[in-house]
Amino acid sequence: MPEAYSLGEIAAFLGAELRGDATLRISGLNTLQDAGAGQLAFLANEKYSSQLRSSKASAVILAAKHLNSQTGAGRDVDSTLYQGAVLILDNPYLGYARVSQWFDRAPKAVPGIHPSAVIADSASLGEAVAIGANVVVEADAVIGAGSYLGAGAYIGARSKVGENARISANVTIYHDVVLGQGVTVHSGSVIGADGFGFAPDGTGNWLKIYQIGGVQIGDNVEVGACTTIDRGALGDTRIGNGVIVDNHVQIAHNVVIGDNCALAAYSGLAGSATMGNNCILAGDACVVGHVTICDNVQITARGLVTKSITEPGSYSSGMPLMKTREWRKNAVRMSQLDAMAKRLKNVELIEEQAKDSGNEQG
Amino acid sequence: MPEAYSLGEIAAFLGAELRGDATLRISGLNTLQDAGAGQLAFLANEKYSSQLRSSKASAVILAAKHLNSQTGAGRDVDSTLYQGAVLILDNPYLGYARVSQWFDRAPKAVPGIHPSAVIADSASLGEAVAIGANVVVEADAVIGAGSYLGAGAYIGARSKVGENARISANVTIYHDVVLGQGVTVHSGSVIGADGFGFAPDGTGNWLKIYQIGGVQIGDNVEVGACTTIDRGALGDTRIGNGVIVDNHVQIAHNVVIGDNCALAAYSGLAGSATMGNNCILAGDACVVGHVTICDNVQITARGLVTKSITEPGSYSSGMPLMKTREWRKNAVRMSQLDAMAKRLKNVELIEEQAKDSGNEQG
Amino acid sequence: MPEAYSLGEIAAFLGAELRGDATLRISGLNTLQDAGAGQLAFLANEKYSSQLRSSKASAVILAAKHLNSQTGAGRDVDSTLYQGAVLILDNPYLGYARVSQWFDRAPKAVPGIHPSAVIADSASLGEAVAIGANVVVEADAVIGAGSYLGAGAYIGARSKVGENARISANVTIYHDVVLGQGVTVHSGSVIGADGFGFAPDGTGNWLKIYQIGGVQIGDNVEVGACTTIDRGALGDTRIGNGVIVDNHVQIAHNVVIGDNCALAAYSGLAGSATMGNNCILAGDACVVGHVTICDNVQITARGLVTKSITEPGSYSSGMPLMKTREWRKNAVRMSQLDAMAKRLKNVELIEEQAKDSGNEQG
Repeated sequence: MPEAYSLGEIAAFLGAELRGDATLRISGLNTLQDAGAGQLAFLANEKYSSQLRSSKASAVILAAKHLNSQTGAGRDVDSTLYQGAVLILDNPYLGYARVSQWFDRAPKAVPGIHPSAVIADSASLGEAVAIGANVVVEADAVIGAGSYLGAGAYIGARSKVGENARISANVTIYHDVVLGQGVTVHSGSVIGADGFGFAPDGTGNWLKIYQIGGVQIGDNVEVGACTTIDRGALGDTRIGNGVIVDNHVQIAHNVVIGDNCALAAYSGLAGSATMGNNCILAGDACVVGHVTICDNVQITARGLVTKSITEPGSYSSGMPLMKTREWRKNAVRMSQLDAMAKRLKNVELIEEQAKDSGNEQG
Repeated sequence: MPEAYSLGEIAAFLGAELRGDATLRISGLNTLQDAGAGQLAFLANEKYSSQLRSSKASAVILAAKHLNSQTGAGRDVDSTLYQGAVLILDNPYLGYARVSQWFDRAPKAVPGIHPSAVIADSASLGEAVAIGANVVVEADAVIGAGSYLGAGAYIGARSKVGENARISANVTIYHDVVLGQGVTVHSGSVIGADGFGFAPDGTGNWLKIYQIGGVQIGDNVEVGACTTIDRGALGDTRIGNGVIVDNHVQIAHNVVIGDNCALAAYSGLAGSATMGNNCILAGDACVVGHVTICDNVQITARGLVTKSITEPGSYSSGMPLMKTREWRKNAVRMSQLDAMAKRLKNVELIEEQAKDSGNEQG
Repeated sequence: MPEAYSLGEIAAFLGAELRGDATLRISGLNTLQDAGAGQLAFLANEKYSSQLRSSKASAVILAAKHLNSQTGAGRDVDSTLYQGAVLILDNPYLGYARVSQWFDRAPKAVPGIHPSAVIADSASLGEAVAIGANVVVEADAVIGAGSYLGAGAYIGARSKVGENARISANVTIYHDVVLGQGVTVHSGSVIGADGFGFAPDGTGNWLKIYQIGGVQIGDNVEVGACTTIDRGALGDTRIGNGVIVDNHVQIAHNVVIGDNCALAAYSGLAGSATMGNNCILAGDACVVGHVTICDNVQITARGLVTKSITEPGSYSSGMPLMKTREWRKNAVRMSQLDAMAKRLKNVELIEEQAKDSGNEQG
């Protein structure tokens, strides 16, 4: 179970102003709604401020503006009844994020190599690596100091895992893949499988194009579960620093992704697509091959990028949800849209003529 | 190979009325079209009734109404030529489903622990568990009686697998995950990986929010292959009883799913989405974060739920398939829809004025 | 590292006309843009012809028509400055594809069985198989000569892997699956998991339909990473020869796919869908259950096939990407499309009447 910390320790770590008992023991984090005695909650979103009143949290991280409402000076008069301790921060959500690691329940990796692990003689292991059962590390691979390889993980020949990585159970990393420092990869993900490259051979068959590039991933990248990052056909697939990638993401061969991008579940980039820095692909937002997206672009859920984007901002596509019986009637019209547009133009022309004719008559 | 059973045994098990030879040996199940001698077929869908005539099945499960047609009294006169034995049931499809287990070809799990399995001393194993090669069970995990863990499966610390579970090869279950009784999880699936939680740190970087919740899955849940169910950020991700989940499904952190829901391939729910009982997400139907769906809702294939749904029923979105050259012409109009709607309004106003003017003149 | 080959050897293998030094050593392949000394590039797409001028490649595969431009006779005068050796082929891209294997960096599989592999006594292994660490091969499975099974791969009972297969690390193949000759399966993929078959039992619960069919995959099929191919409910799921399948693809129970089809990432076919020969599903193109697609059909990215297709050609669905603020205005109109169509019809009728009335008056 997680240890407990004093509220004073937490306040000091966060640089928060504490109003309340600094010796209070905090054994967990939770939402305002679900927190109980001994737990710390936070108010990050205005719309939950009414929950302050009923929260059973022993302490809450909040912004000064909410504190005002606590004292009755603000508009959130309903919340004046919260009686617990408070930690005052400009950005309560960031405070919660920062302290969350203290309460992480994941078992700490214990340095050592499980006797069932199969490590090639030519592989190089840094200090204090923690290598689980049935891990396989192939020839000339390099595992950085402090890194953890979960049970059944596979690291291919000549691949490099930087320091303080966390490679979960049953991850597969092919040969000639380079991960930076502090990279996390969740279970079931596959990095460095062949890109989808085949040439029609002129007789109706597909001829495999061997994928001779690798994968380069920067520092502090997190990759979710069941995600695939393919090796390059020629040259490397490249992901910058600080990129966060969710589950079931597809990053095809020779994709290039800048720093600090976020890719939500089912999002993907097809071959040789390029995305700048600080971009966000929401869930199932996909990018076709060979297009370029500039910095600071957001694609909303299920958006499909079929052309390059040169201007920062938010882009969308797709049809809103309707009751199925309404949708049937509207969807059939989508096949008639071009015809409708032409008919509308025609109607406008007739009116225009009628008007002209009226003017002539008048 | 599957064993053979007498038609009488099968009729008794299903509670079906048998017309034919009870000693007939049935060695397999198949469709009307493909069944051969010694095989049992079923007629569950009216549109296949004409196949009765040509079916080589030795016996068929059907409803009394089809039997009438067998005797020439019904409208399906063409099917009168079927000469085999029949099992009469109100719901032939359910009968087929019930007897299907008798003909399952999956090897029976043999209780025992493979010598290559790595089981923590503090783990607790129920009676008659069957643990395959290279399985890893971490500290304080609990495996219920009669459960099967396929080769290479990983069970994290303190996780609990209920009785009579079937966890296939290369499944990964992280720490602090609880599965109920009779749960099946197919290969490649990952339960309990970190939810996709990061806070912008104010300097352009993403700060990881440690995911300190767990996962709670009810009884008789089936999870397909390469599916992910993330652990909660705070509190647990929760799935009710009797839920069926296909391949490549994404269930994000703190999602709550009621009982007896069905989630087809590629369907998913983003963070903190809530879905009631008896809901169906068809293939690729996705739900954005923080929305709530009431009981008895169906989302058709590729529907995207962006707002809460409070009324039971079927909902859809999306554009029908067209020939690409037609689609190009129609799709471009979608960017002009708002303008078209305004032009239509304008045309109507002009006509209205013309009519008023005509009335005035008249 | 890859070996080096003489340009003469490569020209002879490709049947290319060589203009330049046949003894030149080529140690790698690359794009025109990125190639350096000792590397071979290719010009397959007209739009990159201007890169010839600046390419540092030691040799380039190109078509005779580009050679003309090399000599100044063609329109690509800018490219006349390329001074390296050339290999002349009708189809430079195919030439690149054919020679790519020479430069593949994947470690060659070394025949032998790792001592940690768990092979059932009744399994049958062909000559020169290469079986990695922690591989599990179950009873009565057959592994063809020259095949490679990567670390942690699982081959279920009675399954057959043809000759010269390449099954990557952590692949799972269930029981009664048959793969032809020369099949490649990338990591994380699962073949033969249960199809998604359940019958409503009349009391609100789902009753599992045991999936007693198998999977049949032809020769020279390549399957990407994290892809699922389910076993049949009754009878087999079947994939023809020469089919190429990308990552995250879903092929449901009893799907039938013809020869030489290509399925890009996230594409999928639901239960009992049938697709002919030489079809292409672009990224995220999905096919609902029980429909039939004829030969030579292409579905563009994210197309959703909801009805059978009987005519070869390209089909599409979906809405183009827009700026989110434009999209909001247009998307709301999609719920009004049927009403708009009726209003447009009404406007046309009024004009028609006005015209008739005008004619009568005139």
